[in-house]
Amino acid sequence: MLFLLFLTSVEALHNGLSRTPAMGWNNWNSLYCDVSESLLLDTSQILIDSGLRDVGYQYVVLDDCWSDGRDEAGRWRADADKFPHGMKYISDSLHARGLLYGMYSSAGELTCGRYAGSLDHEKEDAQSLADWGVDYFKYDNCYNLGRMGTAKLSFDRYNTMAQALLDTGREIVYSICNWGEDYVHSWGMSIANSWRISGDIYDSFARPDPICSCTDERDPHCIAPGSACSVLFILNRVAAYSDRGRPGAWNDLDMLEVGQGGMTDEEYKAHFSMWAMVKSPLLLGHDLRTMTAKTLSIINNPAIIALNQDPLGSPAIRIARNESVPKDGFGVGETHVWSGTLANGDQVVALLNAADADLPISISLEEIFVRAGPGGRAAQTKQEWLVYDLWANRMSETHAHAILDAADDAAREAVFRSVNWYNATELPYVQGLKAGDTRLLGEKIGSVLAGGKLEALVARHSAKIFRLRPASGEVVKPYILGKDEL
Amino acid sequence: MLFLLFLTSVEALHNGLSRTPAMGWNNWNSLYCDVSESLLLDTSQILIDSGLRDVGYQYVVLDDCWSDGRDEAGRWRADADKFPHGMKYISDSLHARGLLYGMYSSAGELTCGRYAGSLDHEKEDAQSLADWGVDYFKYDNCYNLGRMGTAKLSFDRYNTMAQALLDTGREIVYSICNWGEDYVHSWGMSIANSWRISGDIYDSFARPDPICSCTDERDPHCIAPGSACSVLFILNRVAAYSDRGRPGAWNDLDMLEVGQGGMTDEEYKAHFSMWAMVKSPLLLGHDLRTMTAKTLSIINNPAIIALNQDPLGSPAIRIARNESVPKDGFGVGETHVWSGTLANGDQVVALLNAADADLPISISLEEIFVRAGPGGRAAQTKQEWLVYDLWANRMSETHAHAILDAADDAAREAVFRSVNWYNATELPYVQGLKAGDTRLLGEKIGSVLAGGKLEALVARHSAKIFRLRPASGEVVKPYILGKDEL
Amino acid sequence: MLFLLFLTSVEALHNGLSRTPAMGWNNWNSLYCDVSESLLLDTSQILIDSGLRDVGYQYVVLDDCWSDGRDEAGRWRADADKFPHGMKYISDSLHARGLLYGMYSSAGELTCGRYAGSLDHEKEDAQSLADWGVDYFKYDNCYNLGRMGTAKLSFDRYNTMAQALLDTGREIVYSICNWGEDYVHSWGMSIANSWRISGDIYDSFARPDPICSCTDERDPHCIAPGSACSVLFILNRVAAYSDRGRPGAWNDLDMLEVGQGGMTDEEYKAHFSMWAMVKSPLLLGHDLRTMTAKTLSIINNPAIIALNQDPLGSPAIRIARNESVPKDGFGVGETHVWSGTLANGDQVVALLNAADADLPISISLEEIFVRAGPGGRAAQTKQEWLVYDLWANRMSETHAHAILDAADDAAREAVFRSVNWYNATELPYVQGLKAGDTRLLGEKIGSVLAGGKLEALVARHSAKIFRLRPASGEVVKPYILGKDEL
Amino acid sequence: MLFLLFLTSVEALHNGLSRTPAMGWNNWNSLYCDVSESLLLDTSQILIDSGLRDVGYQYVVLDDCWSDGRDEAGRWRADADKFPHGMKYISDSLHARGLLYGMYSSAGELTCGRYAGSLDHEKEDAQSLADWGVDYFKYDNCYNLGRMGTAKLSFDRYNTMAQALLDTGREIVYSICNWGEDYVHSWGMSIANSWRISGDIYDSFARPDPICSCTDERDPHCIAPGSACSVLFILNRVAAYSDRGRPGAWNDLDMLEVGQGGMTDEEYKAHFSMWAMVKSPLLLGHDLRTMTAKTLSIINNPAIIALNQDPLGSPAIRIARNESVPKDGFGVGETHVWSGTLANGDQVVALLNAADADLPISISLEEIFVRAGPGGRAAQTKQEWLVYDLWANRMSETHAHAILDAADDAAREAVFRSVNWYNATELPYVQGLKAGDTRLLGEKIGSVLAGGKLEALVARHSAKIFRLRPASGEVVKPYILGKDEL
Repeated sequence: MLFLLFLTSVEALHNGLSRTPAMGWNNWNSLYCDVSESLLLDTSQILIDSGLRDVGYQYVVLDDCWSDGRDEAGRWRADADKFPHGMKYISDSLHARGLLYGMYSSAGELTCGRYAGSLDHEKEDAQSLADWGVDYFKYDNCYNLGRMGTAKLSFDRYNTMAQALLDTGREIVYSICNWGEDYVHSWGMSIANSWRISGDIYDSFARPDPICSCTDERDPHCIAPGSACSVLFILNRVAAYSDRGRPGAWNDLDMLEVGQGGMTDEEYKAHFSMWAMVKSPLLLGHDLRTMTAKTLSIINNPAIIALNQDPLGSPAIRIARNESVPKDGFGVGETHVWSGTLANGDQVVALLNAADADLPISISLEEIFVRAGPGGRAAQTKQEWLVYDLWANRMSETHAHAILDAADDAAREAVFRSVNWYNATELPYVQGLKAGDTRLLGEKIGSVLAGGKLEALVARHSAKIFRLRPASGEVVKPYILGKDEL
Repeated sequence: MLFLLFLTSVEALHNGLSRTPAMGWNNWNSLYCDVSESLLLDTSQILIDSGLRDVGYQYVVLDDCWSDGRDEAGRWRADADKFPHGMKYISDSLHARGLLYGMYSSAGELTCGRYAGSLDHEKEDAQSLADWGVDYFKYDNCYNLGRMGTAKLSFDRYNTMAQALLDTGREIVYSICNWGEDYVHSWGMSIANSWRISGDIYDSFARPDPICSCTDERDPHCIAPGSACSVLFILNRVAAYSDRGRPGAWNDLDMLEVGQGGMTDEEYKAHFSMWAMVKSPLLLGHDLRTMTAKTLSIINNPAIIALNQDPLGSPAIRIARNESVPKDGFGVGETHVWSGTLANGDQVVALLNAADADLPISISLEEIFVRAGPGGRAAQTKQEWLVYDLWANRMSETHAHAILDAADDAAREAVFRSVNWYNATELPYVQGLKAGDTRLLGEKIGSVLAGGKLEALVARHSAKIFRLRPASGEVVKPYILGKDEL
Repeated sequence: MLFLLFLTSVEALHNGLSRTPAMGWNNWNSLYCDVSESLLLDTSQILIDSGLRDVGYQYVVLDDCWSDGRDEAGRWRADADKFPHGMKYISDSLHARGLLYGMYSSAGELTCGRYAGSLDHEKEDAQSLADWGVDYFKYDNCYNLGRMGTAKLSFDRYNTMAQALLDTGREIVYSICNWGEDYVHSWGMSIANSWRISGDIYDSFARPDPICSCTDERDPHCIAPGSACSVLFILNRVAAYSDRGRPGAWNDLDMLEVGQGGMTDEEYKAHFSMWAMVKSPLLLGHDLRTMTAKTLSIINNPAIIALNQDPLGSPAIRIARNESVPKDGFGVGETHVWSGTLANGDQVVALLNAADADLPISISLEEIFVRAGPGGRAAQTKQEWLVYDLWANRMSETHAHAILDAADDAAREAVFRSVNWYNATELPYVQGLKAGDTRLLGEKIGSVLAGGKLEALVARHSAKIFRLRPASGEVVKPYILGKDEL
Repeated sequence: MLFLLFLTSVEALHNGLSRTPAMGWNNWNSLYCDVSESLLLDTSQILIDSGLRDVGYQYVVLDDCWSDGRDEAGRWRADADKFPHGMKYISDSLHARGLLYGMYSSAGELTCGRYAGSLDHEKEDAQSLADWGVDYFKYDNCYNLGRMGTAKLSFDRYNTMAQALLDTGREIVYSICNWGEDYVHSWGMSIANSWRISGDIYDSFARPDPICSCTDERDPHCIAPGSACSVLFILNRVAAYSDRGRPGAWNDLDMLEVGQGGMTDEEYKAHFSMWAMVKSPLLLGHDLRTMTAKTLSIINNPAIIALNQDPLGSPAIRIARNESVPKDGFGVGETHVWSGTLANGDQVVALLNAADADLPISISLEEIFVRAGPGGRAAQTKQEWLVYDLWANRMSETHAHAILDAADDAAREAVFRSVNWYNATELPYVQGLKAGDTRLLGEKIGSVLAGGKLEALVARHSAKIFRLRPASGEVVKPYILGKDEL
């Protein structure tokens, strides 16, 4: 039996899905239990009309509160009031529109919203998902009947569902949501395509909340992951193992809060950029039906999305943290630098300012390329690098308005054509990047000489996101650290 | 077998009991092992005469030291000296008086007082409880033979009793007392109606004691929960997961110390108010036979009890903590603000001063309503709120004296009538609140304009407890976060 | 099978032994593996001649390195070079001299010194101990093959031996030495008479050593308990659960270092006094064959030993800790006050100075009696107390010399008679205390008025040990916290 | 079955191998997955030509990325492109050159580089290793399917392979690489010859990196051991249990970074010296094909290697740590003193400066010999000690160049003869030390009088390594702490 487990686990790791992080939308952050067929169908239409599908947002994920318990045979039932045509109708509709369908349950007796959970019902529930044409499955951690406390206890619980999903034969992206408990970053990749690493995000850049209490990022046994975790909190949490993400298996920083109203435009840009760089799944969390032009022009930036969908799949790493900076009224204040390698040999660098003042941030090439060898021994530190600003070509508010307010498809198309917007449905990122499509590469704003430093003034609660490109065009061959499965 | 476990667990969660926190009395805090039939019967009479039963205190709970081991068949025996008529006689007497009966054991080989424990005797002991007409069962954690260390180990131990109780068919509120070990706040609600979250309380507002050593609230693996935990300690402990309470399943902050003599009147008011707001069970812990008028006039405040018995069942959350305030000789000093939503759309706010000086405390509407959306995006922050003081209508010492000293029932009745005291036996809180009974709503003392702040001077070691009511009468519809089971 | 386990565990708890902490001698601290028949017999003679047996030191404990593996049947063999007459000869000799015999093994494949361990050999090894007439068994934790990490894993390992010892039918005090791992203070009392709570002691009052790294006393999962733990370290470690000791089941602070040479006379007095008050077993650790008069006059103080052997068995509690005092070159510096209740209603108080300067230390009656009720509500705070110094009647160095240098028994007897020394063989402590024997009660040096403070100047690295006696002679009746089994 | 386990575990402990730490080379630190037959054979030739084999480097260890999965029968297959003649050919070639062969796998479904792992394949993989003539086996921890979280879970996983290796009958040094998780230092010695104690080393002396986040050395449950751990980090990690190493069972501080380019010459000397003193295996990690003369003259210092290969096998202990010294830009700065006892009664002392300035460091004999008794009671503190500098006789860069550039064997031999270099193949360290070969003992530079201090100015980021020898020649007999198995 152990032998069988091993074989099937390898299968799970190689389910071949999510070679880049999943992109899409999930209703929870904005709408919670207020779900319905019309919500999903309306939202899917907006994804298409706004051009979001065509910059990569494919998954429409229905979160909690959709079910009506089980029938006498123990099979899940959708709530007939909310979903009058059933679940298969939803997935058929989405598939017809070039979108994919996601659903939700919990590895517990109940879901977090206290609907029927899947613990000890894995086989029948996986079959329901497959029967309903589901493409993505988020599996939560509430009401788990105490089956946690060691990696083994949690692994076994989530693995039961992993095997059940595989056994259906349907390709279903498997998204573990156990809030970073029990060292999931050390085993999640063996059975799932992503794993949450913290309590639930909330719509704040840096406010500390007691309900997100696990402030020591090194502690795997925190009392309660909670549900009010800020962008900054989550970034610090993942910093100890952001390197664990790789094609098919990603750290999940939780759904996006962009457009919800609790942060500034600059904070949302920073939030979105960091999620992209660290290779988190990018699930929009706002209500698309009331989306503003500003929000659209953040989340449709192809130069940022291209970081997320880069085929190398190498997450950015935090390479500097400075806590000796002005603090806000909550006692919070720090700056970071994050750095990551991209498939074409470029390097992405984020200068993140979560201090309570505008500050200059600088970082040497030695530190930017420390993962290629510390102490300045990396060959990259001996090159000149051109610096590209990845937010320089953000869509104008005017154009975004024009898209959202367009009277019909033709009007929308005209705007897209006029701004020559990137369309990933036509030209997938992997091909656009290989072709050097300039819409994915930002705008050149300067350079760093060999042995030099990257410096910028960064406003309070914002981030600068730069793509560094070798001036000579010569790419340093990276170390081979594992089997090439791409 | 796993399948069966699942089904019965759901049953436990839905035993339908304790939709609001239990209220009553327990002998331990004041009398320890000094228990007897007369103690329980005398106390029950005082509950009635003092009007405490009629503001909600229903459960008379006998703690440890009542047994005389087991008979040859392994059945529990009550100590015949202390309980000459046996246990059924007690419950019959209490029931006849409109009260309910609680008993105690430990999930160990022995109770904490080293009487026979119920570990590996769950089936027969649950049957004894049912046979004796018990309505509430407190299950302690001493002498557990090392069956702890992961959530699973503790869950399994407490679940065995949960199932045994269910199997008796009698409705028995199940109160887990494992001192917050092994993440009980993540599984207690699946099998029990409440779970202790700390070591034992003692009669101090803020004094730190080495025997209550677990001062890092985020640490689930503290060496020894202990037995000398202050009010402040317990509040900080629960702050990371106070949101876990909900109808039928409550964080238990331990029995009350009000009236024991180690704190000031203001400290006791703060202690009582916070327990009520956080939705802890409210078990009086003092010796009612020597109760003072001051004590009575704290614990019989219907405006505070109505917070506890609010049908929404949403515990207050700590939304601010300030440790940069004057410290006492123990190095302790901090202020808090706690905030919670009530069923009718009101918001309760506590300004708690545990610093070593009188201090002004202020809090913005943005923070008060942060759970409805951070960054000031919550609609509630755009409203004006009227502020009601929930201690304004405390019973006068004179009237309380008159009740306690009354010669007979008629005299007592006269006092209650003259002050028009709230009677929950006649008008349950859920109905009183729905009807807007002003005796439950405090006294208006001011208002906070939209976008404004609530401010008050708060004396050293005291709390201000305010009910905020929308000036317009318009209630913001809350997010639906889960299944409505009310 | 679980049912049987329960029954036998209760038996273990009630093996009726060690109603007061064990007293005796163990060779490890001074002699390590340098053990032999002659060492044990010579030492036992010194215990008698020096009067140490007659102040209570009864157990002669042979630690590690005594065995020569197992014979073909798997039975332990004593090393024939070190123990030419075998183990039964040792126990017979000790018994004939009014002493008791202790031996050692490890709950591992090997002992710490890499001799044959007892893991998975419990049955046969317990039988060997019984056959050899052993009265006390120390069971170590080395080479445990990873069978730890939860309370259950360690409990099961140590319980196997507990049951094996019981099954022999011989009365053997069972001393668990698992260095405080896996919450032993929460289950040790169910199967053993004492449990170590830290890594090994070393001969230093306060020097921190990296090999004793677990400096956070609240952390049950420290990486390595180690073997260079100072007196101060161990006291701080036990402070979180010193209250767990009770008749038959004691926190074990490890063997004494008194007389080894690494501390001053005052440090050794403090070390000895604290071990006595906290109710640790008192196992001398020095080489008696080279004992000085100063050493003898510390360890034979009956007023201190009477604290340890007090029939109430209630360990002292740390009631105050001040870290804002001068630090030494290691950064160490703090003062403590410890307080404990005694059977006759007296209170013992220690003022401990581990700062780097002589300091006044004061403590109010409110704090001294905080365990009887905080906030000054304890009745004891309203009494006047007489203060007795328990070191006032230390044996003079001249007399101690005279005993150690005496030519024969008659000469020794003469000294004992001349100083009227306490003899516990003739008058056990329980009787001496009941009779109010003044040799056990120190010398009156002052008093504390009701509501007052106890104050003294305490020299650097020393302790004052006071017995407080009610001036009126009236004893406040204590709370009954559990079954009286005395 | 438990009984059998016990017996075979004892066997494992006594596999008789690695009585001193293993020495050799491993490709990972410099070449990662870039492995091949020619790499191993070329490297082995350099080991011989450079004289490294003859100062002790015997094991040529092939790390990850060598396999091509399994054949239909489940047997490991070597990658035929990288290893055209197979694995047995490699081991035969190495054996013919007086070298030994090491290989690698992971106790997971996959290796860290995502090649086939050995979890649940232990039996067949151990047989492959034996069939291929492997002498050393490194067993990693990636992709372990959540089988961790208690000592027992990890022990069981690694023990399965230990038994499988034993069952082959071949002598294979077993090197556990579980990054210090689950208290491996408490059970590794029962089944293996060494165990890693941290995340992977990287080529930096003291730079902190978030990917090596476990900065609290006392925490056994750190979230992610990581892969960017500095020399200083690893030394601090092992400090809590450096004493656990002993003949046949060693703390593994990870492979050396000497010669990689990220540190200064002084930093590499300090790194190499500390690894040697703490008795870590010494596996070179650089690419020998591009080795500089400076690098060679660090790693071939016989006076340092003799510390590592000292037959007593007693690791150095950190006896002092000073954090009140100048900090660098990362906030890092501290000095240490480490001290260890050697077989002939000498004492090795390291003064390590990881502060951001040149500093004098001094240490008293009392502290140097604290493990022989604190408080100055150790006899060694009453002796005069001669101080020998172990780096005084480092090979000159000229000579090292001459060796590396030599045209042929004869030329090389001439250099070795001219400098009279130590040859451990001819005269093993145990014999050279017994004979007092001066090439192993450094150069006398002064003395410390009884009761005195050792003092030196130590440059920023460097270490002074001294061998203290008793001036009188008289050696203090050490305590016997366990069975002598040498």
